[in-house]
Amino acid sequence: MALIVQKFGGTSVASVQRIQAVAKKIKSFKDAGNQLVVSVSAMSGETNRLTALAQELQDRPSLREMDVLLTTGEQVTISLLSMALQQLGCDAISYTGSQVRITTDSAHGKARIKSIDSSLIVESLKQDKVVVIAGFQGMDESGQITTLGRGGSDTTAVALAAALQADECQIYTDVDGVYTADPRIEPKARKMHNISYEEMLEMASLGSKVLQIRAVEFASKYNVSLRVLSSMIDNPVGTLITSEDKIMEEAVISGIAHNKDEAKVSLIGVPDIPGVAYKILKPISQKNIEVDMILQSVSAREGLTNFAFTVHRDDFEESKSILEQVRSDLGAMSVQADDKIVKVSLVGIGMRSHAGIATKMFEVLHRENVNIQMISTSEIKISVAIDEKYLELAVRSLHAAFELDKE
Amino acid sequence: MALIVQKFGGTSVASVQRIQAVAKKIKSFKDAGNQLVVSVSAMSGETNRLTALAQELQDRPSLREMDVLLTTGEQVTISLLSMALQQLGCDAISYTGSQVRITTDSAHGKARIKSIDSSLIVESLKQDKVVVIAGFQGMDESGQITTLGRGGSDTTAVALAAALQADECQIYTDVDGVYTADPRIEPKARKMHNISYEEMLEMASLGSKVLQIRAVEFASKYNVSLRVLSSMIDNPVGTLITSEDKIMEEAVISGIAHNKDEAKVSLIGVPDIPGVAYKILKPISQKNIEVDMILQSVSAREGLTNFAFTVHRDDFEESKSILEQVRSDLGAMSVQADDKIVKVSLVGIGMRSHAGIATKMFEVLHRENVNIQMISTSEIKISVAIDEKYLELAVRSLHAAFELDKE
Repeated sequence: MALIVQKFGGTSVASVQRIQAVAKKIKSFKDAGNQLVVSVSAMSGETNRLTALAQELQDRPSLREMDVLLTTGEQVTISLLSMALQQLGCDAISYTGSQVRITTDSAHGKARIKSIDSSLIVESLKQDKVVVIAGFQGMDESGQITTLGRGGSDTTAVALAAALQADECQIYTDVDGVYTADPRIEPKARKMHNISYEEMLEMASLGSKVLQIRAVEFASKYNVSLRVLSSMIDNPVGTLITSEDKIMEEAVISGIAHNKDEAKVSLIGVPDIPGVAYKILKPISQKNIEVDMILQSVSAREGLTNFAFTVHRDDFEESKSILEQVRSDLGAMSVQADDKIVKVSLVGIGMRSHAGIATKMFEVLHRENVNIQMISTSEIKISVAIDEKYLELAVRSLHAAFELDKE
Repeated sequence: MALIVQKFGGTSVASVQRIQAVAKKIKSFKDAGNQLVVSVSAMSGETNRLTALAQELQDRPSLREMDVLLTTGEQVTISLLSMALQQLGCDAISYTGSQVRITTDSAHGKARIKSIDSSLIVESLKQDKVVVIAGFQGMDESGQITTLGRGGSDTTAVALAAALQADECQIYTDVDGVYTADPRIEPKARKMHNISYEEMLEMASLGSKVLQIRAVEFASKYNVSLRVLSSMIDNPVGTLITSEDKIMEEAVISGIAHNKDEAKVSLIGVPDIPGVAYKILKPISQKNIEVDMILQSVSAREGLTNFAFTVHRDDFEESKSILEQVRSDLGAMSVQADDKIVKVSLVGIGMRSHAGIATKMFEVLHRENVNIQMISTSEIKISVAIDEKYLELAVRSLHAAFELDKE
């Protein structure tokens, strides 16, 4: 008998019919002799409906009251899913985040889980019940209702698995696992059987949208075996995300991630004085704009330097106008901006012990005449910024060169 | 400075626009220097929407899970109303029933309030906030979410007023007060300035739909000054419901109530043996059917008796078939049934000290050729069951005879 935590997102519980389908899936695990704790999101569309009501009332709705409002979404789902389970003859009980004391800090709208009191859940499991818990929500130490923000319901599931020392945490989504590349770009992309937390974290932060970064971090911290699998197919296997030492045979490269959300801004012809990077990046960070890749290069004109970096596309316009001001302050020549770039990354723990991965990557791209605009590396990944028109070409040629289509 | 508890029902908060109108009304009381605690229902239509979802899933939805589901309705309203108040520059904070520890028994769907912890509310009032509280809901001692059932949000408001020792509890409805008779039947009906708890209780239990009985009982028990007034008009005065000793000049008769929800069933020609009433009413009460008026009379045939009583129209068919069984068991002659009756009642504390009220009532009805089928009395009311076609005639002639149109 295993204790399994399952998480179903908003699309999986979008209607009464889908809730019934989810209930059947849960029941099949229960009938196989497992203990089940299930975390769910609001029915898809509900959060938008509620947010629209709030925005009719208040220009910038109070974050505290938004949390009171939005947490009703999951509360509706937990009661309906419990009823669907009961109708199938499967005893079930629902709890809100407050009821099982998912205690968070007080940052309304983006709270972080501090602790979970598992006693009520354990008691209900002992009574042979499926325990259905509202994802995405908790309460702070003074009893105020909070929400965890984006991806919060993945995090709830992982935190529950950690608190209950569950055997596995299953995240049901609309994809059936983690692939060596985005299958929409590389049809030969192969579903991985397993991947380490570290690689999954890199994949997620580099643009793979399968799992939220915070949930993976949480799983890694508490050593929770995390499985991503499809809610749409029967008996899915998915991809297991575990600690490195549990993975038998590690490939050199696990996968290729790409990110189309970045844009590049450059300051051309900056007088090359000490502290130039600081003077350029300080006003950017003051606006809470995150910088990803950075490149400082020698200018064509002597004594001058060029300074380029990438930001999220949402911050593109603001970054440009900040740079215009900096240009004038520093007496630089011009500002260049390019939102037609894409970041392509190779991820793999094997890089640590295999030299020459970067060289091979650059060689493949060079052979295909893909110009590399910027490079950044970490211990287990190499990323390059390239013109977005080369995205498919780069992903496919790297996928083939590193033989990712082979087991 | 007064502490006022206000309650707004589902129709008053049915849309964003109405919530804004309610917020303006609350703000006007706040601006006049009062402390405000506001209890609200779910937006009208929401409870039906949620109930329909549940009924798609479960034949007889779990009462516990129904409470988890339905309490989201008020939780949505409290957050939206708080936002509307904040948008008007009026600081506000929302609390669910669980958050302010409205502790109830564990009877899901019809729980009764046991206690309220006022500390959080008092603290927020001290911070000069309007406190908005979800009506209709609470939690039991083990932290399970409960609902109070029909009329529960009136009861929440009164219970809050009692716990906070508020100066007044204002119930906003779609009528502007308590009338001497239903104005749709007697256009000369006059709005009362005040009425005692006892009279209001009789009016409510006799068919006046202005306030729920439980809320009036609660107000009476804790001596809460209760005011019924319209949410649709500006600066309403409404009707104040208080203890008898606060009412300066008591009219002999306060008002006329009527009830169209009753039906009469009769067993004709029952052998007049001891315990006949018990034998007839026991199977009725075993089905949880409540009996109101009862009449046992001599039959035309010697040694036989007729036994008639009234029940709610919802229980009419079931009562008939039970009586058929009893008829056969007791060897009675026949069952008669009549769902075309109405109960008309005179209510007034003055009856206690004024003799002859009943005589005058019967005289008025006799003069109008209204046949009285059954009679029941209490210390402060006289009720008669009559054919429903005489309803308007009876109400109007009694209203005139007792001069209820005059102050």
